[in-house]
Amino acid sequence: MSAEIVNPRSDSATGDQDEPFDPAFALHRGGKMAVQATVPVRNKDDLSLAYTPGVAKVCSAIAEQPDLVHDYTWKSQVVAVVTDGSAVLGLGDIGPEASLPVMEGKAILFKQFGGVDAVPIALDCRDVDEIVDTVVRLAPSFGGVNLEDISAPRCFEIERKLQERVDIPIFHDDQHGTAVVTLAALRNAAKLSGRALGSLRAVISGAGAAGVAIAKILVEAGIGDVTVCDSKGIVSADRDNLNDVKRELAGYTNKAGLSGSLATALDGADVFVGVSGGTVPEEAVAKMAPGAFIFAMANPTPEIHPDIAHKYASVVATGRSDYPNQINNVLAFPGIFAGALQVRASRITEGMKLAAAEALAAVVADELTPDKVIPSPFDERVAPAVTAAVAAAARAEGVARR
Amino acid sequence: MSAEIVNPRSDSATGDQDEPFDPAFALHRGGKMAVQATVPVRNKDDLSLAYTPGVAKVCSAIAEQPDLVHDYTWKSQVVAVVTDGSAVLGLGDIGPEASLPVMEGKAILFKQFGGVDAVPIALDCRDVDEIVDTVVRLAPSFGGVNLEDISAPRCFEIERKLQERVDIPIFHDDQHGTAVVTLAALRNAAKLSGRALGSLRAVISGAGAAGVAIAKILVEAGIGDVTVCDSKGIVSADRDNLNDVKRELAGYTNKAGLSGSLATALDGADVFVGVSGGTVPEEAVAKMAPGAFIFAMANPTPEIHPDIAHKYASVVATGRSDYPNQINNVLAFPGIFAGALQVRASRITEGMKLAAAEALAAVVADELTPDKVIPSPFDERVAPAVTAAVAAAARAEGVARR
Repeated sequence: MSAEIVNPRSDSATGDQDEPFDPAFALHRGGKMAVQATVPVRNKDDLSLAYTPGVAKVCSAIAEQPDLVHDYTWKSQVVAVVTDGSAVLGLGDIGPEASLPVMEGKAILFKQFGGVDAVPIALDCRDVDEIVDTVVRLAPSFGGVNLEDISAPRCFEIERKLQERVDIPIFHDDQHGTAVVTLAALRNAAKLSGRALGSLRAVISGAGAAGVAIAKILVEAGIGDVTVCDSKGIVSADRDNLNDVKRELAGYTNKAGLSGSLATALDGADVFVGVSGGTVPEEAVAKMAPGAFIFAMANPTPEIHPDIAHKYASVVATGRSDYPNQINNVLAFPGIFAGALQVRASRITEGMKLAAAEALAAVVADELTPDKVIPSPFDERVAPAVTAAVAAAARAEGVARR
Repeated sequence: MSAEIVNPRSDSATGDQDEPFDPAFALHRGGKMAVQATVPVRNKDDLSLAYTPGVAKVCSAIAEQPDLVHDYTWKSQVVAVVTDGSAVLGLGDIGPEASLPVMEGKAILFKQFGGVDAVPIALDCRDVDEIVDTVVRLAPSFGGVNLEDISAPRCFEIERKLQERVDIPIFHDDQHGTAVVTLAALRNAAKLSGRALGSLRAVISGAGAAGVAIAKILVEAGIGDVTVCDSKGIVSADRDNLNDVKRELAGYTNKAGLSGSLATALDGADVFVGVSGGTVPEEAVAKMAPGAFIFAMANPTPEIHPDIAHKYASVVATGRSDYPNQINNVLAFPGIFAGALQVRASRITEGMKLAAAEALAAVVADELTPDKVIPSPFDERVAPAVTAAVAAAARAEGVARR
């Protein structure tokens, strides 16, 4: 079944953003997901097993031995996709209802790519503690929580506070999914060009959810130095306008002690990672070190157009599906959750994220070209590889419960 | 696929409550439900419609015109099945995790019988206002909320406060589902015996969620008089040990001004409705009026055994599937929600409940026998009839939004 078959009116698509008969609107009519029973409910006998009276003994067993909830309900295969609608795609703060099409999309990607059931939960509240309290109360019903499209810096505090209070994985995909895929691509770019990670100086443009998480994972992975820039320039300890998150960031990045503009940071840099949505002037790009890697991931307009990037870089990646090397979170989150749920992990540790990045990179390690440092989202080897690596890392790190 | 085929180990079932290899446990392994995509996600083109960039224009459209959320997401076809695990089946307060098998069961019944998607939400909180606040925050993601297995009298306050704060239907099935099916059966029992509802005096044993809602709907439907008994006897205005809910109940029931025991109430009564879980001595049953209707709905042990009930009653109903005339909520809630969602009702009014009961009764109005005053749960005429009646009533009552 193709999108065109779903609704023949898509033929009349004009591309007008307000045209309700274009293929995106046609596809979205009625939503993109459904619930299904996985057991039969056709007759009295079925009902007496799946519902009363049969269900009572299963409930009683869980009441006596709480771990059995993982065996006898869908808890350990279902993830809540939680947002407050405050930072949706490039659209910004559009509120919970308007964010639902994205959350449904995320839910079906979980299913399609990771075999993980997922439920969109768009919350009508904004206060950090209200969001945290709400998700804590929901936690019994879910095996994990994927935070999505929550604005920075609230997203950092929400994730931290939540994970302190529940024993299921809390994972803000805009941070960590992006970070894992970026690291995987960078690993392969370095491998392809025969360079050690420790020899690279990376510049990240953007100190929001993705930028902070990428900085953190690159440092953990052993990148030589990472310099992060926000809208006011290089995040450095000498600035007096840093929030707590950026102050912490300044503590473990920018070993070179740079201060000033993004252009200053790019001078001689080996890696550019764009997660800002701004644009970078070609003069600044031209000053990067020879053979640089440029990952311009803003959507739909990369910070550096690929045509320009290719003039100065040996490897170019974007966030777009119509260029090679798409940094797409769908390469990470389905397998990360599938792996965590498989072993009933209580959290997703840094080690599990690093393992996911390594496994993701390894999928195409023997097929590397400048246009293929990361697998396609439709490469069927990806999710099983990430799942297995994350499950193994969870066991190694002592957060697995089976 | 039968339950036996799902897991061949069910052959070894022993009936022992702790035996993990009986058919109920085998059936429940891994849970009873899943999520599925209803649109294709096979390739880049699919992804660009169902997710970025195509999804962005759908989100923007909803942000500009909020009602579109009903058209372009699954909101208007999905119900949250919300519990705090405080009054689960006959098991009582077993907590949120242990209640999940029941909530999943409820969810698949919604799907199977009403075509309504439903998601189990078992909350880890007990305070009335915390539960209300939590569900208010969840409301953007759902078209309705089915409250389930929340203990009385908290359930009354939670339902009322919630409905004041959201514009989607809030429906406590333990109250209203039971009430609707009971009224339907009573209508048909009266019809079968040629008696007017206004001529009947009914006695309800139990003043919890179901008892209170049944009393209310019977009074609304024009039953001559309704007397409710709790564990201390007849709920009458002269008692000084009534909570707010029972005091209100005393105001519109017990026109006869009776006080004393259940036996006193039953003397000469035409209808017994048992939702208490206690037992009624045969001597008390013997004093009911000739041709009485006995609905002894406690599960698994009816308040009056059907064999005894038949000695004194012209119509006998129970909550059990192995006797005729099963008062089963599944006859009501799927169609009630399907009808409410179809017209995007903002609430489920008393008129909609009465319409549901009438429609449900009408399904078998031409086939009435003492053993068939209510349809079988598997009668395929039921859900469409209830759905249509509820949708029409919502329009008539001005709570429909389309």
